[in-house]
Amino acid sequence: MPVKPFIDTLAIVGVGLIGGSFSLALKRQAAVRHVVGIGRSRANLERAHGLGIIDRIAQQAPEGVAQADVVLLAVPTGQYPAVLRSIAGHLKAGAVVTDAGSTKQDVVAHARQYLPGHCARFVPGHPIAGTERSGAEAAFADLYNGKRAVLTPLPENDATAIALVRSLWEACGADVSEMSPLLHDQVFAAVSHLPHALAYALVHMVSASERRDALFSFAASGFRDFTRIASSSPEMWRDICLSNRDALLDEIDTYQGELARMRGLIEKPDAEALLALFSRARHAREAWRAGADIPSE
Amino acid sequence: MPVKPFIDTLAIVGVGLIGGSFSLALKRQAAVRHVVGIGRSRANLERAHGLGIIDRIAQQAPEGVAQADVVLLAVPTGQYPAVLRSIAGHLKAGAVVTDAGSTKQDVVAHARQYLPGHCARFVPGHPIAGTERSGAEAAFADLYNGKRAVLTPLPENDATAIALVRSLWEACGADVSEMSPLLHDQVFAAVSHLPHALAYALVHMVSASERRDALFSFAASGFRDFTRIASSSPEMWRDICLSNRDALLDEIDTYQGELARMRGLIEKPDAEALLALFSRARHAREAWRAGADIPSE
Repeated sequence: MPVKPFIDTLAIVGVGLIGGSFSLALKRQAAVRHVVGIGRSRANLERAHGLGIIDRIAQQAPEGVAQADVVLLAVPTGQYPAVLRSIAGHLKAGAVVTDAGSTKQDVVAHARQYLPGHCARFVPGHPIAGTERSGAEAAFADLYNGKRAVLTPLPENDATAIALVRSLWEACGADVSEMSPLLHDQVFAAVSHLPHALAYALVHMVSASERRDALFSFAASGFRDFTRIASSSPEMWRDICLSNRDALLDEIDTYQGELARMRGLIEKPDAEALLALFSRARHAREAWRAGADIPSE
Repeated sequence: MPVKPFIDTLAIVGVGLIGGSFSLALKRQAAVRHVVGIGRSRANLERAHGLGIIDRIAQQAPEGVAQADVVLLAVPTGQYPAVLRSIAGHLKAGAVVTDAGSTKQDVVAHARQYLPGHCARFVPGHPIAGTERSGAEAAFADLYNGKRAVLTPLPENDATAIALVRSLWEACGADVSEMSPLLHDQVFAAVSHLPHALAYALVHMVSASERRDALFSFAASGFRDFTRIASSSPEMWRDICLSNRDALLDEIDTYQGELARMRGLIEKPDAEALLALFSRARHAREAWRAGADIPSE
């Protein structure tokens, strides 16, 4: 049974879907007494306050984090340098800093650069949850329930800091695992960043067509679900694509090769090989959904 | 108000999700008295009979269609030549034949080749509905409710035959439109066939990776929805890809160009252009979902 955490003051930088849901989940578990919201958009922070997601709106980041026992960064990773610069030197001694960014190698580099004196208590994290909706009003307490969360601890991390961050995500209902920042970025380039890029590309292509009205008017549920993630925050996904550029470019190249091979089977045509490819894909997906082993062929 | 249709005997070739749901919807509307099921899999037909989807299992296609006022083909289009050959000469005079195939130019060609004497009453159709599930047990009466259905009539079609097929789909709750087989195949290559090919390619790529277990274990709801259509029937999608080969190859080429352009923006990196691309895509998708006009830029 995991130890139930309790922290007095939590500061959240970026009170949107991710940061707001973290607060709601911890409040429901009575795992936090007081939540301070920090962010660029006053209107969003006021909505968050009105929704009971945060207890206080910080005027500035330095005073917002000054009393915090835990600070969660939940902004697009492109904002990390500015945010880390603004809070450096203002953190309470012993405060634990963590984040929810979708890429981890760049976050580790930013932490080393901007919080060099605090790296023992900076524990990078990434909850594997989200919807295509953004902003405080999208937050809900169950977002992380039954989902996974990944921590990519630094070699110099205090064990107590890692344990605290783990226990907070567990209190949100998440199943927590640890891996290296490099492996994290490679895995998520393949199963998250690449699909987002592919979905944005398809919607952009259709919207750029002269026939866009006819095309969208006959697009149905398959198109809707395939492209759901293209309604995600453009700013966040620009940052992810650029933060994880090398791994994502590798995955795009592999994908283009896969698509070119499929194109060849259609052009030839090789009905048997095309059926085999579709069948293997379907079989693998069904095994995944059923929680079974993924067949190697 | 559309005229409520009534037909005495309906024969369905292929009693799966599409054919079975057509029967259930018409039965609920009391628009048909007797439904005969024809198919390759005796076990599937028996399930359909047990579920009340069909009233009788035909031993052979010729006797199955002999008394039918309307015949619906709802098998993968690769089976059309064999099916049309088997029923040619066995149709009742005046029987209307229609289909639910996802491609239309090839269906028109098959009809002209195999039912040359019956083309005045062969009305090609395509309901824009489906799920990734297959077989009689996947059928449900509401599948077509609020969805679109496209007819691509032949120049020689009897107006009464077109009107009857239209009224049947309307009785299923569908919104019916007409277009040419060529335009149909181009539109659906872009918004349906291409996304299916892209989803199969992604799942195949991940399943072929040496890291497949780690990759699938961290794949989340974005991946799940993006790849839902890769759980569709491999046989049906092989047939669609090959039937609509030229239009699909064009769309794959356009998509590869789009993806290469996005790759260039990531590699450069051009943060501003990448943000603009993602924002345009999101904006177009949101407009589509809201039923608003699609912005041209």
